[in-house]
Amino acid sequence: MSEPSPVGSGPIRATPASRYLLRPVTSGRITGGLWAERRRINREVSVPEAWDRLHEAGNFHDLELAAGRSDGAYVNELPFLDSDVYKWLEAVGWLLADPDLAAPLAERLRDQLAATAELLVAAQQSDGYLNSHFQVRFPGERFVQLDWGHELYCAGHLIQAAVAVHRAGGDPGVLAIARRVADLVVDTFGTEEGRIDGICGHAEIETALVELHRETGDERYLARAAYFLDRHGHGLLPDGRFGRQYWQDHTPIREAEAVTGHAVRQLYLLAGVADVYAETGDESLRRAAERLWAEMVATKTYLTGGIGAHHSDEAFGDPYELPSERSYCETCAAIASIMFGQRMLMITGEAKYADLLERTLYNGFLAGTSLDGQRYIYANPLQVRDDHVGTGHDQDYARVPWFHCACCPPNVMRLLASLEHYVALSADAGVALHQYVTGRWTAATAAGEVALEVTTDYPWDGTVRVTVADAPAAEWELALRVPSWADEVSLSVDGEPVDAAAVDGWLRLTRSWAPGAVVELQLPLDVRFTAPDPRVDALRGSAAVERGPLVYCLEGADHPGTRLDDVVLDPAAAAVDQAGPETIGGAVTLRLGGRRRPHPVGWWPYGSATGADEDRAAEPIPLVAVPYFTWGNREPGPMRVWVPTS
Amino acid sequence: MSEPSPVGSGPIRATPASRYLLRPVTSGRITGGLWAERRRINREVSVPEAWDRLHEAGNFHDLELAAGRSDGAYVNELPFLDSDVYKWLEAVGWLLADPDLAAPLAERLRDQLAATAELLVAAQQSDGYLNSHFQVRFPGERFVQLDWGHELYCAGHLIQAAVAVHRAGGDPGVLAIARRVADLVVDTFGTEEGRIDGICGHAEIETALVELHRETGDERYLARAAYFLDRHGHGLLPDGRFGRQYWQDHTPIREAEAVTGHAVRQLYLLAGVADVYAETGDESLRRAAERLWAEMVATKTYLTGGIGAHHSDEAFGDPYELPSERSYCETCAAIASIMFGQRMLMITGEAKYADLLERTLYNGFLAGTSLDGQRYIYANPLQVRDDHVGTGHDQDYARVPWFHCACCPPNVMRLLASLEHYVALSADAGVALHQYVTGRWTAATAAGEVALEVTTDYPWDGTVRVTVADAPAAEWELALRVPSWADEVSLSVDGEPVDAAAVDGWLRLTRSWAPGAVVELQLPLDVRFTAPDPRVDALRGSAAVERGPLVYCLEGADHPGTRLDDVVLDPAAAAVDQAGPETIGGAVTLRLGGRRRPHPVGWWPYGSATGADEDRAAEPIPLVAVPYFTWGNREPGPMRVWVPTS
Repeated sequence: MSEPSPVGSGPIRATPASRYLLRPVTSGRITGGLWAERRRINREVSVPEAWDRLHEAGNFHDLELAAGRSDGAYVNELPFLDSDVYKWLEAVGWLLADPDLAAPLAERLRDQLAATAELLVAAQQSDGYLNSHFQVRFPGERFVQLDWGHELYCAGHLIQAAVAVHRAGGDPGVLAIARRVADLVVDTFGTEEGRIDGICGHAEIETALVELHRETGDERYLARAAYFLDRHGHGLLPDGRFGRQYWQDHTPIREAEAVTGHAVRQLYLLAGVADVYAETGDESLRRAAERLWAEMVATKTYLTGGIGAHHSDEAFGDPYELPSERSYCETCAAIASIMFGQRMLMITGEAKYADLLERTLYNGFLAGTSLDGQRYIYANPLQVRDDHVGTGHDQDYARVPWFHCACCPPNVMRLLASLEHYVALSADAGVALHQYVTGRWTAATAAGEVALEVTTDYPWDGTVRVTVADAPAAEWELALRVPSWADEVSLSVDGEPVDAAAVDGWLRLTRSWAPGAVVELQLPLDVRFTAPDPRVDALRGSAAVERGPLVYCLEGADHPGTRLDDVVLDPAAAAVDQAGPETIGGAVTLRLGGRRRPHPVGWWPYGSATGADEDRAAEPIPLVAVPYFTWGNREPGPMRVWVPTS
Repeated sequence: MSEPSPVGSGPIRATPASRYLLRPVTSGRITGGLWAERRRINREVSVPEAWDRLHEAGNFHDLELAAGRSDGAYVNELPFLDSDVYKWLEAVGWLLADPDLAAPLAERLRDQLAATAELLVAAQQSDGYLNSHFQVRFPGERFVQLDWGHELYCAGHLIQAAVAVHRAGGDPGVLAIARRVADLVVDTFGTEEGRIDGICGHAEIETALVELHRETGDERYLARAAYFLDRHGHGLLPDGRFGRQYWQDHTPIREAEAVTGHAVRQLYLLAGVADVYAETGDESLRRAAERLWAEMVATKTYLTGGIGAHHSDEAFGDPYELPSERSYCETCAAIASIMFGQRMLMITGEAKYADLLERTLYNGFLAGTSLDGQRYIYANPLQVRDDHVGTGHDQDYARVPWFHCACCPPNVMRLLASLEHYVALSADAGVALHQYVTGRWTAATAAGEVALEVTTDYPWDGTVRVTVADAPAAEWELALRVPSWADEVSLSVDGEPVDAAAVDGWLRLTRSWAPGAVVELQLPLDVRFTAPDPRVDALRGSAAVERGPLVYCLEGADHPGTRLDDVVLDPAAAAVDQAGPETIGGAVTLRLGGRRRPHPVGWWPYGSATGADEDRAAEPIPLVAVPYFTWGNREPGPMRVWVPTS
């Protein structure tokens, strides 16, 4: 597929100049299955409740102070909490375009949107500046704390929210507010005389300005986004307590060989790199994005798609530094990876990006919210020990209703609210389905408009039925992604087996499709036992269990009387699927073979390498594995993704 | 041995009431070998240079401000930097009693001591209060920021310093200053009406007050130390960002089942627990100290004796959470473990405490300083990756001249300056040598005074010669510790083999010793390959190399052209001792057998657990291991203590 052209509204709008090999298909509707339920909860529970949470936490109060409409002290210590309101607003924007949104709720959200727009208008200063933290707490000190001040980060999230609200229709003026903010940013920063030559300590403005360019056609926004990218890596920010790589200011992006520093900052920046490449065709940016994605995936990505090993600086570790027990894997970092990956997929058309997208969506991202949509987790470990002692409010490995630093919850909301954009892509030549979700997608191709209806119980079942609901009377290509873990797939068209082999991860079917044609793809959901590269010290001698796109884990709740630290997994034993309990949403669980080491243990955890092996005393026990994304929805307890095999 | 009685000066002075089974022997002199050289460097380089570092860093300046003798802004942001001056002062105190201190240097240190005492007199307020941070930055706000204010912590270090200076003789008034501070603390805190019922967020005052009690005989200090212990675990401090266990305020010390929270805080507190037990005989405190030490050693101690797995909160992790690549192992925590362990050894006479003391001294502690005594490391990892990216000034795994938070350097100085106190112990029944260091020790026993001369090239050589230089004409016991790693030892007295078996880690020889008698102990220094408990996920499938009390490691410097991440160790191959280069002090290095896995590796670090084993392609290479304490003294590069074995 080639030759991009502009398509309709969505999280990413392609301009005529865009270098997308695949364009976003944003006209989808998710109608059934796992994601429909997650989105229903997001729509009916999470987003409406967030209005209350954001009021209770003082985010709205602080904006009211900036607007001069309230008295009292500024509540929030952290400088970036306006952005939580903006991310929630972005979710509201996408939801208002959701045909499944019930009318009473739609009315409520529209009222909240209008009230928020009114508040922002009141808070915005005459020259466009809008940031409650600096307006109230540090008046007159704008744009001088670029390292930790998060002004451009907040501006970026406002711009993203405005784009979403505007694309959804019925914008009560948010885009106008955002444009005034963006205009101020455009006019304030730059290398020109009298301007501030600076970058923000937290990337976000870059991708936001590109999106605003797409929405408005104003080239100044694109140019300033490119400027911010270019100015990273020149030491404009101080060294800081975590080193300059924390905010990716240690080396210019085109020269960077490795993802480093704060994971969300790094990947928001890389999303901006992909966006600027898409609009400018600057191949040096594309090369940097491809190189850094590959480095991240080869040595710094957890099996769940989670990224960022370090707690202290929420940062990438060294290559192969992927400890399960202190995997930080911030929920926001998973979202950042999805944002970056979606852009790379559109630029290159390469299935590997969709593979990681899927892995991250079903595991590292989805685990960040409780099944009831009311509690969130900030750090997503791959292992919680027996006798785990939490070390602070964000590191207790239990989901909670809200955080002191609540960046993750509204980030989850905006992604779930726009998830239909992350399923299908199009090009002149046809349509590509890269995720398998029940629903309907329509896309423009050179041959004409195509409508696809997908029916599947994936990821629980491997059958994906794609019905060509509408099609032009001409040849076009239907491309279906075959995940890299799927060794043998089978395919049929209208019941007839088709002998098609995936090439580079895509099954490509070019035909003149008759409306009503049914393509059925069968993906193998056999249980897979996965081993780590021996360089991942933290995982040596262990295995993980996967089934389809899902990573599984053991939880204490399923193993009463057993310490998970004592458990050994036997990959040679048969694995049996079984329906899980309602407390984990009826997910498919797996019955596995294993052993239990004797307990208690010795006075000192080291002994002779040539000494006796206590394994011989281990007794056989059955094990139960549940999908990783369902962990922690029952009583708190230990959990393990990677289990020793000897 | 039993029936303690008071002995001479030292870091811990036994009172008549002390429940010590073994008393400190503090009249020693270290005259040769590894420790003599480390102490010479400490005496001639580190301590004198620290005077300049503490002036450059502003610690003295800030005290000058408190004394009203200087103008300008308060320099240090951290509230506890007076304590760095006090720890340095403690080192000066011990050094002034060191017979190896050259006269010109002694004069210089005495001048610095006098100047410091004068400064502290000037800074101390009329009621005894002394803390530059609060006097200058927060006047009138004393004792209201008990969580992070560190006022009692600083007071404790001043008291410890005063005790050292006073015991060394020639005190220019430091003890009087410290007593006034202590009196204010005694009168300010307590459950009595009108007093502050509180504890400090960082333990230290407890053990310091016991020492002041020992030095002065004033019972009030002991009572207040016991009060501070008792009041931990009652939620007097806020929850804080790391949870209440961070400062051991989550559960009363007598009920605690596990060491938790900030490692230095936990072990300073436990040193206080041992100290209060020693003076009061409160068995519930002794039981708590024994229980918590055992829990720490069984599941939370690194092979180096280092403790504290977490970077973010400098804290203990969960049981078996001992990752090499992010082992925090703060140098101060190793020192805290030595302080606690020495007290437990004296209380119980159990050799296991001396075993850990030795392990920590030679590895976790000694690695904290460069061989030239001019650079320090804060966090002591057991592994540095190829391509390691530092994440901030204290986490770059390279020794530096000083820190923003410079707690470790003067802590190292005070321990090295008093190291002769950590070698021998006495009781009425005799003398126990628990560390093997060349030098001379004299001790009081019921039979009379005993003098021992020790000659050894330990840890490089296993022969320890103990000459009874002076002895009473009566029976007394000479006890020699046999480290738990020493499988077979041999012993002779005056050249005649003695068939003595160690019981509970001690070889006990009760005789009427003639002056000049020579006892020779032969410890086996064969190379040992050590395996971890399989519950230590981070270490599974790997082995470490030990020789005598030394843990060894691989360094990049000895393996040019090889990535340490690719190396496999073969414990079945022969290990050969060889003299190391001068750049690591001529330490004994080990030549080992190993293999190197092919590089580069795949695009994704996970694969089928039943797939091909790349080990088959690994090529044999020779490996060189160096003592862990010498690492990082050559060019910066990767390092590993634990090496995969397959």
